[in-house]
Amino acid sequence: MAPRLTPLVAGLPASVPFVGPEALERRSGTPFRARMGANESVFGPSPRAVEAMARAASETWMYGDPENHDLRAALAAHHATTPDHVIVGEGIDGLLCYLVRMMVAPGDAVVTSAGAYPTFNYHVNGYGGQLHFVPYRDDAEDPEALAARAAEVGARLVYLANPDNPMGSQVPAARIEAMIAALPDDTLLVLDEAYADFAAPGSLPRVKMDDPRVIRMRTFSKAYGMAGARVGYALGAPDLIAAFDRIRNHFGMCRMSQAGALAALADQDHLARVVRQVAQARARIAAIGAASGLEALVSSTNFVALDCGGDGSRARRLVSELGARGVFVRMPFVAPQDRCIRVSAGRPVDLDALEEALPGALAAAREAEARA
Amino acid sequence: MAPRLTPLVAGLPASVPFVGPEALERRSGTPFRARMGANESVFGPSPRAVEAMARAASETWMYGDPENHDLRAALAAHHATTPDHVIVGEGIDGLLCYLVRMMVAPGDAVVTSAGAYPTFNYHVNGYGGQLHFVPYRDDAEDPEALAARAAEVGARLVYLANPDNPMGSQVPAARIEAMIAALPDDTLLVLDEAYADFAAPGSLPRVKMDDPRVIRMRTFSKAYGMAGARVGYALGAPDLIAAFDRIRNHFGMCRMSQAGALAALADQDHLARVVRQVAQARARIAAIGAASGLEALVSSTNFVALDCGGDGSRARRLVSELGARGVFVRMPFVAPQDRCIRVSAGRPVDLDALEEALPGALAAAREAEARA
Repeated sequence: MAPRLTPLVAGLPASVPFVGPEALERRSGTPFRARMGANESVFGPSPRAVEAMARAASETWMYGDPENHDLRAALAAHHATTPDHVIVGEGIDGLLCYLVRMMVAPGDAVVTSAGAYPTFNYHVNGYGGQLHFVPYRDDAEDPEALAARAAEVGARLVYLANPDNPMGSQVPAARIEAMIAALPDDTLLVLDEAYADFAAPGSLPRVKMDDPRVIRMRTFSKAYGMAGARVGYALGAPDLIAAFDRIRNHFGMCRMSQAGALAALADQDHLARVVRQVAQARARIAAIGAASGLEALVSSTNFVALDCGGDGSRARRLVSELGARGVFVRMPFVAPQDRCIRVSAGRPVDLDALEEALPGALAAAREAEARA
Repeated sequence: MAPRLTPLVAGLPASVPFVGPEALERRSGTPFRARMGANESVFGPSPRAVEAMARAASETWMYGDPENHDLRAALAAHHATTPDHVIVGEGIDGLLCYLVRMMVAPGDAVVTSAGAYPTFNYHVNGYGGQLHFVPYRDDAEDPEALAARAAEVGARLVYLANPDNPMGSQVPAARIEAMIAALPDDTLLVLDEAYADFAAPGSLPRVKMDDPRVIRMRTFSKAYGMAGARVGYALGAPDLIAAFDRIRNHFGMCRMSQAGALAALADQDHLARVVRQVAQARARIAAIGAASGLEALVSSTNFVALDCGGDGSRARRLVSELGARGVFVRMPFVAPQDRCIRVSAGRPVDLDALEEALPGALAAAREAEARA
């Protein structure tokens, strides 16, 4: 008898939430020309952040500050709150893992939308939580249905991304505010605002910083262009924020990333510039799609869902054919959203590659569909 | 009723394994002159690693490769094994957290030495494991006693650091090899080899890469001088290594750190140079201690335990008095090892600061002791 996994972990699937673009490149033997599948920001981080990280490289013999003191202080000022409302972690993925561990015991109910962020589901499954799914409504998350289901099943957590991934849709602030008011007292809303920086100013729900029933997740991976630095943060009531300290990897943050995030936060001009570039890229993705008969969904994020029609198999073929032509995109996992492909904002050179590849990829996908 | 923590997490203490030096500096209002308390490598990473990280800073808009493919391939070659024997993670701390989660269900027995690595204990407590402690023998871990206790309590994990932290001692390879042979079939030995690079060549136990009962932990935080980059790895049997993929934060690694570790591994000359500098520093720490009547314990690591005599209160006062003089050191947590202070290897300038501060700090500590 060899050492064995816990029954919980032994029962988990070996599958992973996402196969990375590098792994896809290794499989095909060809690097992508345009990397527009992971909602990264090809516009890059602020030059000041790059400089801060490069400078910190020679200081990397020191552990990062486990309290993330300076970054939390800066984030608190940015959000007009105090540092005890802010926890910094290894990306939103890392924070979701901690949060699920804190709140979800085996068998506990958790509510999310069918087709929403798979990594959240991965962590809920990983801690033995019981997932309950609510369908999207009109290609958007449905706060009223999520709250109703949370009450029905006695959910510990209910997950809502606003703006949403993978559809790019945004729910009016008032509906989310009403959802929070309607939540059971012992249900925590995980409001994933990874794409908040792309939303129209003033369009996000107002959340009381001391409301114990809401935790908001933010990141430097999207608009700040620092996905590879792994810096996420959450805003919530101090008691909840303090509880992360009971379980988190205290020395988990890279020192370079701490320095980079601090510099990136201070360069709001760069952020505004990226948001403008992303808006231009979204418009061009829509135009490229329209030229091939694919309608773009309205997006409040740094990506656009293009409606390919048909069922998931057509979009799946198109993702594959685009990949074969060097253009990395992804697609939603669940019907009927899986009729779309999801294209991240690119620079003009990336969008040129998309424009060039799309008609041929679409023709090949349709041909394969006709043969099938 | 507000959202509540799981019963397990609600029962955990709010205390943290280590208070970082930055927090100590904020409390005192004065930066340390010499940072010799966290076993970091003030000699720094390879210049090639610094260059690779600085270069990667501008590529940080991309997530790191979640499979850590290139680094795992290089590590496998370095250890004459295959990549499926290697898992890369967010420092040994991160890997210990994953491993405990994989192997320890609430109530499961785990064995370690009293006074050994507190962060391991933190993770075991965090998953509800039941810790059983074995005392040090002659200021070193006691493999025979650890194996015997593991058999007695039916341990899922038994932890052994070799070379050891906080004492710096090393157990002869043959004793660890005999311990492995004597372990119950279903007990996994966690062999923490964070300080392996400082051990004499050929002095470490030989472990079969496919032995399902041993997992070895290594790091870029110590001899490679990259504590702030958070790169650890583990070597073990492929089934065990593959199980990490069920629960780990797949996109948890910094892209800069991946690039830095790859470059650092390729610069073994730098590593050899650091190991020589550390040996010189150890000798000088011993001489500085001897000049004040403190005996140095033999060390196979990048730090030296200096025996202050008396009980823990004398060493505790000395740590505090050194801190007040700008010299950051730490000390063991458990008697009788807590009669020592633990001083990490420093550059000549750091050791000058120690030499200058020690006599006065010692006098102040003895005075306080006499008054107490």
